[in-house]
Amino acid sequence: MTNSDLTAVVLVGTLSPSPAPSSSELIGRQVLDALAEHGVVGTVVRLVDHDVKPGVQVDMGAGDEWPAIRQQVLAADILVIATPIWMGQPSSVTKRALERLDGELSEKDDEGRLLTYGKVAAVAVVGNEDGAHHVSAEVFQALNDVGFTIPAAAVTYWVGAAMQGTDYNELDEVPEMTATTTRTLAANTAHLARLLHGAQYPPA
Amino acid sequence: MTNSDLTAVVLVGTLSPSPAPSSSELIGRQVLDALAEHGVVGTVVRLVDHDVKPGVQVDMGAGDEWPAIRQQVLAADILVIATPIWMGQPSSVTKRALERLDGELSEKDDEGRLLTYGKVAAVAVVGNEDGAHHVSAEVFQALNDVGFTIPAAAVTYWVGAAMQGTDYNELDEVPEMTATTTRTLAANTAHLARLLHGAQYPPA
Amino acid sequence: MTNSDLTAVVLVGTLSPSPAPSSSELIGRQVLDALAEHGVVGTVVRLVDHDVKPGVQVDMGAGDEWPAIRQQVLAADILVIATPIWMGQPSSVTKRALERLDGELSEKDDEGRLLTYGKVAAVAVVGNEDGAHHVSAEVFQALNDVGFTIPAAAVTYWVGAAMQGTDYNELDEVPEMTATTTRTLAANTAHLARLLHGAQYPPA
Amino acid sequence: MTNSDLTAVVLVGTLSPSPAPSSSELIGRQVLDALAEHGVVGTVVRLVDHDVKPGVQVDMGAGDEWPAIRQQVLAADILVIATPIWMGQPSSVTKRALERLDGELSEKDDEGRLLTYGKVAAVAVVGNEDGAHHVSAEVFQALNDVGFTIPAAAVTYWVGAAMQGTDYNELDEVPEMTATTTRTLAANTAHLARLLHGAQYPPA
Repeated sequence: MTNSDLTAVVLVGTLSPSPAPSSSELIGRQVLDALAEHGVVGTVVRLVDHDVKPGVQVDMGAGDEWPAIRQQVLAADILVIATPIWMGQPSSVTKRALERLDGELSEKDDEGRLLTYGKVAAVAVVGNEDGAHHVSAEVFQALNDVGFTIPAAAVTYWVGAAMQGTDYNELDEVPEMTATTTRTLAANTAHLARLLHGAQYPPA
Repeated sequence: MTNSDLTAVVLVGTLSPSPAPSSSELIGRQVLDALAEHGVVGTVVRLVDHDVKPGVQVDMGAGDEWPAIRQQVLAADILVIATPIWMGQPSSVTKRALERLDGELSEKDDEGRLLTYGKVAAVAVVGNEDGAHHVSAEVFQALNDVGFTIPAAAVTYWVGAAMQGTDYNELDEVPEMTATTTRTLAANTAHLARLLHGAQYPPA
Repeated sequence: MTNSDLTAVVLVGTLSPSPAPSSSELIGRQVLDALAEHGVVGTVVRLVDHDVKPGVQVDMGAGDEWPAIRQQVLAADILVIATPIWMGQPSSVTKRALERLDGELSEKDDEGRLLTYGKVAAVAVVGNEDGAHHVSAEVFQALNDVGFTIPAAAVTYWVGAAMQGTDYNELDEVPEMTATTTRTLAANTAHLARLLHGAQYPPA
Repeated sequence: MTNSDLTAVVLVGTLSPSPAPSSSELIGRQVLDALAEHGVVGTVVRLVDHDVKPGVQVDMGAGDEWPAIRQQVLAADILVIATPIWMGQPSSVTKRALERLDGELSEKDDEGRLLTYGKVAAVAVVGNEDGAHHVSAEVFQALNDVGFTIPAAAVTYWVGAAMQGTDYNELDEVPEMTATTTRTLAANTAHLARLLHGAQYPPA
């Protein structure tokens, strides 16, 4: 295998359009950097910069920018959802992307498998405080429902102590626990994506 | 007390712009009808028809239509969130409204209380299948975090059996259990709103 | 009204039997202390010290110690669930109590109301890190489903930063944000319990 | 590869001790039957028949029957959590097992990996009505946090329509959608377990 045989796309669910700083984009890029050490090349999409229409079909028609994002997801081996926490829950922007992925349930390959089969997903979560586990639970379930595979230890995150207000992108450095967790996520995600890349799930 | 001393606003989280039919709008209107029998008058807002900007402030600036919706919420005694289920979770449109309500944490009255204090919230949920309890959990928590009070039995819902595809608005009639639950929700919500209308929470 | 016209019971969901120290019991007692300033007297039950049988009936038969706890809940105006977080979720001990409360759906007063109607519930959550919002969401929903009313801002909590290991009962002092939140919870809970004590929900 | 090179253990979270009928045990056995068609042999453990002590260590001492169950989990390639829904959430018995699995975070192999690494997990959920998606979300997250890998479409379930009362084990036959979903789960789970069995995650 070559040094960059796998590809990834990171969907960032920040509520803030570019060029505003974004903690969720930051951790998403850190995941991509960690994946690069395992032969994965990828891109980052800040969802809120695009007009992703509400709906649960793969194409919602005129002006919908999801189909172009969808092509990046379908072309990649790995999907990373990087999301902020608001009220202990994933952002509405992230939820919009998950709903659009629900449309994949109607799309099958020649052998009856969802087009997402064989793709691996991981999650990166940041917030001022509290919510990372629940966010990962909701994202894991939604992604798994539409065909993604979840590697061991597939979430990295940072939150501060209860009711504090510092953002992840205001920290002096990446906390060691988060950095280690990101590295583990990347190693496991790349390993599993490579395995599945070479051995797709059986036909339906 | 007069026969219509209380007001309600129903925020509908369907993904479909008007005039498309909407099961969540249907159940939202049914809640409003049931509240009317307890002296509550109100209005329905289909959120997706409005340009509610992403963010967590009460006003996100140019073009943001949330401030007008917010005024309706602040003027009402009762807030009803009517949402579809997608992937077992509340819709992205509903989540957007909840995030905007997060902005209320910065707004206080002269006695240090959130402007939502004394307001009562209820939830109506519909989906083809599965998810109503979790949706109500997430909505209850988000609304409670920003100051709303939740009356006993504050959710009405309908879902079909596992993995079936009929919509609520395609049913021949409202299932009796859902109709009864809606009536109970309305009685409890109006009762508690009236109590709090006459006896606000203490100053902070 | 007298200075102690209301009663509360705190159900503590720690996994550790007495006399082991318990962070969730600590915050539960702090809630009770704060309620005392609003005329509420109460007791604390460490659930794991009792043989609460699995099941969803109000009495599971021989050896079941839930019926005695249930009597305390039914005698009180206020129920506080104080729970640790494990894996971002409420403890199994807390879940056991919620399941037993599910049995209340079969019990009605002479006017067709659940015996829990008019009772107010609040939640206190502690963990090393992450999970308080989701825990409160699940507990709010379960308690509301069986008839409890949730006052504004009905949860107090503490968690540390991501993946850290200090317990709440190892802190030098109660963090100010948590202390303030506990006070607000107590004021709102007592206020609403007093209102409902004097004006029960309407008959079914 | 031989026809039975993989092993599975199904942990059943019913609240009812044997020999009471159990819908969650039924669907758990159906998953095991479906896995058998892919060369997986396994056993079923009804957790409530065993004295699984509360706690988050791998062995809670005298009388604790978790260590014997744990040995079965560690010896298997596949873990299936089969759980009923109560109040829209996983049962307390299931939660107890998840908490005990939290103890695995302290156990490592010679190369620094959790002992769960390389094991694949799937979920089976039944209830009268509503809750399967949220239950799978919570179980996926908890199992993933402690090192299990989640294959594509890793949940099978059945629930009835809103607020109805028939149990899964009272149905005349397995609904076709559930039967199909169980078959897909089994095919994907066996495939991924076989892949990981032959190619463990990299050292930490």
